[in-house]
Amino acid sequence: MISIDEARGRILEGLSPTGAETVALAEAQGRILAADITARVSNPPADVSAMDGYALLAADTGPREVIGEAPAGHPFPGQVGAGQAVRLFTGSFVPDGADSIAIQEDCTRLGTTLTVNESPRPGQHIRRKGQDFAAGDVMITAGARLSPRHIGLIAASNTPWVAVRRRPEVAILATGDEIALPGDPIPQGGIVSSNAHALAALVRACGGAPLILPIAADNRNAIATAALSARRCDLLVTTGGASVGDHDLVASALAEQGMVLDFWKIAMRPGKPLMHGRLGDLPLLGLPGNPVSAYLCAVLFLKPAIEKLLGLPGHAPTPVAARVTADLPENDLRFDHLRCRLQTAEDGTLEAIPAARQDSSMMRTLAISDGVILRPPFAKALSAGAKVNVLRLDFMGL
Amino acid sequence: MISIDEARGRILEGLSPTGAETVALAEAQGRILAADITARVSNPPADVSAMDGYALLAADTGPREVIGEAPAGHPFPGQVGAGQAVRLFTGSFVPDGADSIAIQEDCTRLGTTLTVNESPRPGQHIRRKGQDFAAGDVMITAGARLSPRHIGLIAASNTPWVAVRRRPEVAILATGDEIALPGDPIPQGGIVSSNAHALAALVRACGGAPLILPIAADNRNAIATAALSARRCDLLVTTGGASVGDHDLVASALAEQGMVLDFWKIAMRPGKPLMHGRLGDLPLLGLPGNPVSAYLCAVLFLKPAIEKLLGLPGHAPTPVAARVTADLPENDLRFDHLRCRLQTAEDGTLEAIPAARQDSSMMRTLAISDGVILRPPFAKALSAGAKVNVLRLDFMGL
Repeated sequence: MISIDEARGRILEGLSPTGAETVALAEAQGRILAADITARVSNPPADVSAMDGYALLAADTGPREVIGEAPAGHPFPGQVGAGQAVRLFTGSFVPDGADSIAIQEDCTRLGTTLTVNESPRPGQHIRRKGQDFAAGDVMITAGARLSPRHIGLIAASNTPWVAVRRRPEVAILATGDEIALPGDPIPQGGIVSSNAHALAALVRACGGAPLILPIAADNRNAIATAALSARRCDLLVTTGGASVGDHDLVASALAEQGMVLDFWKIAMRPGKPLMHGRLGDLPLLGLPGNPVSAYLCAVLFLKPAIEKLLGLPGHAPTPVAARVTADLPENDLRFDHLRCRLQTAEDGTLEAIPAARQDSSMMRTLAISDGVILRPPFAKALSAGAKVNVLRLDFMGL
Repeated sequence: MISIDEARGRILEGLSPTGAETVALAEAQGRILAADITARVSNPPADVSAMDGYALLAADTGPREVIGEAPAGHPFPGQVGAGQAVRLFTGSFVPDGADSIAIQEDCTRLGTTLTVNESPRPGQHIRRKGQDFAAGDVMITAGARLSPRHIGLIAASNTPWVAVRRRPEVAILATGDEIALPGDPIPQGGIVSSNAHALAALVRACGGAPLILPIAADNRNAIATAALSARRCDLLVTTGGASVGDHDLVASALAEQGMVLDFWKIAMRPGKPLMHGRLGDLPLLGLPGNPVSAYLCAVLFLKPAIEKLLGLPGHAPTPVAARVTADLPENDLRFDHLRCRLQTAEDGTLEAIPAARQDSSMMRTLAISDGVILRPPFAKALSAGAKVNVLRLDFMGL
């Protein structure tokens, strides 16, 4: 058995970023930027007014004559001279000659005669050209996950199209004679399969494009046929058939197809059986059949794998500190992941409430858990109130 | 000027949840459940083995005869009697007669003769029918935002279709003679419009469906025509034209169309001008034209509005505590929102680093901010190291 970190390192090593594709800015939210965004305009594009008011010369004294107005988008064509003023609004270009803005609350206007009750300083209430950004500035660097704020900034930099990483295509193959998709007839002794749908949702949440393959029965032909149909994908994920039981056929079926197998068991719970290999150019990740184990392995290995395919580093998920509300026994050699709910205590501390039953068959417990408490190999017993590290599934959106 | 909380309350009051639609489970991730999910099967569907091993009678002594095997999905058709055992695997149905599972590591098998080196207790290593959930159990209640774990649980409960709230359609109307969409020719004195794209991305991130209307020039006809084309939507959001300047036409253009105007200024910075009204059945939210103000108003008002349309409570975003790294001046009567970056200090505390320049025209500052420091009206001056509340834009995905 190897450690989680070593396993993740070996999986990531074999993955390269997908190519770039061009998408309309309106469709780019959440995508990973594949090339830097450089501003094509400056913002503001000229010196503009920061307030509603009047453009004038600060050094003037006495009343000014209002010689025109310049709403945003309609610059004043002339020059502002001594004793003159031009009505402006927030965002209006400052006309030539003027050196400051008197805000309207500080002025009294009668017809075209303006009395300035509080004179501005030179330059006051003017936003200088390029104060936010200048044409040619690198605005956002490749690798950013585009938030709505990024989208706004890219729009403002006058960029209608962006290059983003192609969504990694992840084929998902659930195997087993005993499983049926929801709503399909359930065979005698069978169960409803949940892994393919849960993993497809996880792939989507991580920025990948899932391809759910039809369930493969427990025979070599069915498994090989399904796996080969995924050859054009960026990654093949199987569930089931990665354990050591007599009926675990995935490894042998794919070996016959030329898979280079880097088989291992990982020192973790839940989720010991995990398979990693390569079928030609296609990287393969074999998750356990147990839904809770498959899901946790996906959080720990598939999520970083998709990130690596997206050109990101693919780090381990970052834990947060919490206070555990129950005693925890000492741990054995397998890295344990205790499902827990989270709440904020009155003193503001995050509290982790471990599920009473940690059996890896409890899907309902997983569904209502907000996170998992990390228990490294040989972690000492802890009393209620001790500090633990927690992976926040809720914050990961997983 | 009214408070942020009062404004939000008035906006939410006028909104009702959208209807439900049926979507395939595979498409339901991130959607809001509109009806409870009830299990149609039990999990496990029968007593099953929790391990690879042998089903037998715990009270037996001496060697057993292995009378068959039952891989998962292939239940053993017969009965297990005294002195007998059936080979099982994780998930196999426990055959009639057997009362416990001896795990394979504790057994020695020679042909069909099985020696059990460590006898199980009665019931050991058996997962009981319905231990996870039973048919008829309510699994997930309406109002849940469906995570990949929910999707897995819904699949396991044998439900291929789910009722979710229809995505609220939010029409977005940017107004102004001076603005052009990215890549379009920029008029003399004009700027590139970013609000429509930033808001559309925010609407998507919140679970809504944005409809970007063509930009309306600063005249009543153009604004009225655009707004009326949004009548079938759940909400109309305008940007610009909500201030008090002479060229703010949205309110007057829509008043001519029969809009019942609930106009206000909000005691907040950035973002004072905010308009709320109703054009027939269509609720209307008028955001400022300034992109930073528009975005922050969208976080504070549009996000909860979309949540209300999705049948959720539509609470104010929840702040987290952080330690500010710079002195902050006392605040005036307007609730202030200081853009900041966030980092974790060596002692694990979240630190908020306010942007040096809080000018609301700085889009680039907003784009690289992780959050905003909340400064309530008349908040006292703070020294570096003091505790502040922060809205985490990064965690909100906004």
